[in-house]
Amino acid sequence: MAAEAAELAEALRLQADTVRRLKQERAGTEEVAEQVAKLLELKARLGVDDGRPRFLLKTPKGTRDYGPKQMAIRERVFSTIISCFKRHGAEVIDTPVFELKETLTGKYGEDSKLIYDLKDQGGELLSLRYDLTVPFARYLAMNKITNIKRYHIAKVYRRDNPAMTRGRYREFYQCDFDIAGQFDPMIPDAECLKIVYEILSALQLGDFLVKVNDRRILDGMFAVCGVPDNKFRTICSSVDKLDKVMWEDVRSEIVGEKGLSTEAADCIGEYVRLHGGLDLVEELLQDPKLSQNKLAREGLADMKLLFEYLMLFGIADKISFDLSLARGLDYYTGVIYEAVLLQQQNDHVEEPATVGSVAGGGRYDGLVGMFDPKGKKVPCVGVSIGIERIFSLMEQKMEASEEKIRTTDTQVLVASAQKKLLEERLKLISELWDSGIKAEMLYKKNPKLLNQLQYCEDTGIPLVAIIGEQELKDGVVKLRDVATREEVDIRRENLVEEIKKRTCQP
Amino acid sequence: MAAEAAELAEALRLQADTVRRLKQERAGTEEVAEQVAKLLELKARLGVDDGRPRFLLKTPKGTRDYGPKQMAIRERVFSTIISCFKRHGAEVIDTPVFELKETLTGKYGEDSKLIYDLKDQGGELLSLRYDLTVPFARYLAMNKITNIKRYHIAKVYRRDNPAMTRGRYREFYQCDFDIAGQFDPMIPDAECLKIVYEILSALQLGDFLVKVNDRRILDGMFAVCGVPDNKFRTICSSVDKLDKVMWEDVRSEIVGEKGLSTEAADCIGEYVRLHGGLDLVEELLQDPKLSQNKLAREGLADMKLLFEYLMLFGIADKISFDLSLARGLDYYTGVIYEAVLLQQQNDHVEEPATVGSVAGGGRYDGLVGMFDPKGKKVPCVGVSIGIERIFSLMEQKMEASEEKIRTTDTQVLVASAQKKLLEERLKLISELWDSGIKAEMLYKKNPKLLNQLQYCEDTGIPLVAIIGEQELKDGVVKLRDVATREEVDIRRENLVEEIKKRTCQP
Repeated sequence: MAAEAAELAEALRLQADTVRRLKQERAGTEEVAEQVAKLLELKARLGVDDGRPRFLLKTPKGTRDYGPKQMAIRERVFSTIISCFKRHGAEVIDTPVFELKETLTGKYGEDSKLIYDLKDQGGELLSLRYDLTVPFARYLAMNKITNIKRYHIAKVYRRDNPAMTRGRYREFYQCDFDIAGQFDPMIPDAECLKIVYEILSALQLGDFLVKVNDRRILDGMFAVCGVPDNKFRTICSSVDKLDKVMWEDVRSEIVGEKGLSTEAADCIGEYVRLHGGLDLVEELLQDPKLSQNKLAREGLADMKLLFEYLMLFGIADKISFDLSLARGLDYYTGVIYEAVLLQQQNDHVEEPATVGSVAGGGRYDGLVGMFDPKGKKVPCVGVSIGIERIFSLMEQKMEASEEKIRTTDTQVLVASAQKKLLEERLKLISELWDSGIKAEMLYKKNPKLLNQLQYCEDTGIPLVAIIGEQELKDGVVKLRDVATREEVDIRRENLVEEIKKRTCQP
Repeated sequence: MAAEAAELAEALRLQADTVRRLKQERAGTEEVAEQVAKLLELKARLGVDDGRPRFLLKTPKGTRDYGPKQMAIRERVFSTIISCFKRHGAEVIDTPVFELKETLTGKYGEDSKLIYDLKDQGGELLSLRYDLTVPFARYLAMNKITNIKRYHIAKVYRRDNPAMTRGRYREFYQCDFDIAGQFDPMIPDAECLKIVYEILSALQLGDFLVKVNDRRILDGMFAVCGVPDNKFRTICSSVDKLDKVMWEDVRSEIVGEKGLSTEAADCIGEYVRLHGGLDLVEELLQDPKLSQNKLAREGLADMKLLFEYLMLFGIADKISFDLSLARGLDYYTGVIYEAVLLQQQNDHVEEPATVGSVAGGGRYDGLVGMFDPKGKKVPCVGVSIGIERIFSLMEQKMEASEEKIRTTDTQVLVASAQKKLLEERLKLISELWDSGIKAEMLYKKNPKLLNQLQYCEDTGIPLVAIIGEQELKDGVVKLRDVATREEVDIRRENLVEEIKKRTCQP
């Protein structure tokens, strides 16, 4: 692409930004409502200036706390995902939450405006990471790594308009798995799809579908439809909205805002309605227009190979070659994919509606080269699991079920039946901790036995080790099973072993 | 404290800030050097404008990436710490990386200037969290929680001048354990110290010492030495430096910059040199000046109780009551503590030198009330493990030892001895993954057997599953032990079981 063309494309992109911004301002009622609420709150407090805080007690917009219950669910989901990543031999890395601002510049196309910048407090200009892919590419280039399979689970930040009820936040986790290195075509790409399949199956979120496409097929399609080179990326951004809006709206955006001819738009419209499997790949390889384009032919040949590997992995039935899939980010260069959960339904309709994307990724062979002083490329392919939607679904599922979620692992409560035994409880619990037993006690000098038992009921602690004057004299501890209420005296020297045996923990 | 006094104190604090800032500017040679390096780099690149990046390839100042080896060490340390927190019955929570700016305002005293602010991009004013304690207090107040024992492991941010070689960063992990609730005195406080003891022992970092003091004893000491009320916190900040600088320097700061009388300074000087155990507590309870002060008496009585509990826990010998311990943060109200590693040495000197703080914490009974609209207090006590120093030490230890750290858990490499067996390798590895085996293969169509074996040597994979024409015909797989080089044919249907048996993994 010539320099002038790039400049024009950039100008257009800026213009599109302006339009979008204007629209957002018009629709910014949410913001206004928030401000009004803030002002009302302030007003209400002005009369009662008693030195108490006069600010809103909240987390920043688009963020949330995780309480112990949510964390228990989150850790279950993470553990499923991490064990899959490790099963595929991935190492793990971590990078800082912020990067030099220039590291992120020019990587995200129209989404760049959603990047959080840090205030200039002297020193370097910094931005919060927008995803884990660009920091990964920076890490590879900086350390001259040409070959790695790694996962990275961390929070990323986007100044988006959050829809938190649907699991969309401004601070959210990404779970990324990427394979970097020069390899034979489509083998790592197929493994990424296998990973998506394994994770979504293991999480038991219901039926799902993984849409795949290829940037080269998209670009070939744009070319044969007569889209000018410098409009490929911006038209791609519009097509990317097809999972949320109808073709008619996308069409009017690319014709109206982006100035495409109606012929080109309709040509694109014909292609993007296509989806299928290997049969569609074969069909398009014969397509009179598309088969004339070198990029499209390369993309289709690789797509064919990909489907062969997916069949060997036994997962091809969940994969749909879908020409409407575009992915928003600029850096993809080859295969792209996105997993969607299918709506649970009993009525049989032909086209099941989707409840949104839970994983996505693709190949980005040029990104590392953008960071290398000599432009040395490291081909990469990866997948990102969109964990927040999955948390939301799991939370709903847990709440719907009767399953009681324990938020601690405590095996035993150290209790006393009489007063003045605090010292003895402290001695016993210290013995248990030192032997690796997970133990708690109430932080009271003289707690009532009933309160101690109630605490076990509330928190799910299965055993109580009760000491009283008599037990101390006899060198035993009364071990009570909270569920059955059975009590039995255990010699103190056997207590650790007995607790371990009963709670089946190592 | 009257409103005027508070205002004066604030003005003084601001003045102290100005002085410090001026000093920092003078000493800001590091920054200048960085800028010069940047300019030189830019200059060097101006001649070769080939479209390649012209920016520095680095992480932001004071931050670092964690590669797979560092992550392996980090996860070992975390697992030790988390298992200790869980042994004590803690739940886990998480909060956003940034808070409303006003949430952090007025909580950190002189350290507030180290807070990272986000740029105002419209909407709320935000700051990166400075620690995990203030977000915890905000969480409690916001959710009206009056009783919880939780841990939180996350990164915090301070615009400090980093000394990364000594494990000091601008982005660093804190591992916090806190107990919130109204309980009988010193029981949760003693448990926090027990936790510090357990973690530092388990990590085997060498000998350590936990210094304890109490803000009430400090304030009592300030009062009886004639320090004006409104100077308590700023003098406290100066005394806090005693772990890094000599008393003479602190003395000249509190007399010179902070305007204390020489008599008051010398009186403080007499006290802060004291350290000991229960005996010192008893002695100070009889001290003619200190025993006249109500706050000091309360602090000393609780300190006595604390030592009694620490003796029951069997850890009193590692705890030192030290009147020079002050802790920088404003929010502490009672007992405070800080753990230091003692220098390993063979020569016997009386006073072992310390290599720096690895854990710290204390009681903060007023912080939650600062967030509650009605000022309702929730007493809290907690400890924070300063993990970066520990990582640095572990890294050095690992490098010094010959131990080879594996960065993956892969059990088996799926390999082939002949060409054209990619499809067969894909089928076999898919079977293994589906059975929960951690397996890898090279992403080559026709890799050489030698390269496949070398990969196992390099990454520590213990087994190779080799397929060739003959094995496929016979329905077997050749299983090779990488260490012994022994090979044995295993029937394909028994392969999973055999791998599990040999790698002793569930």
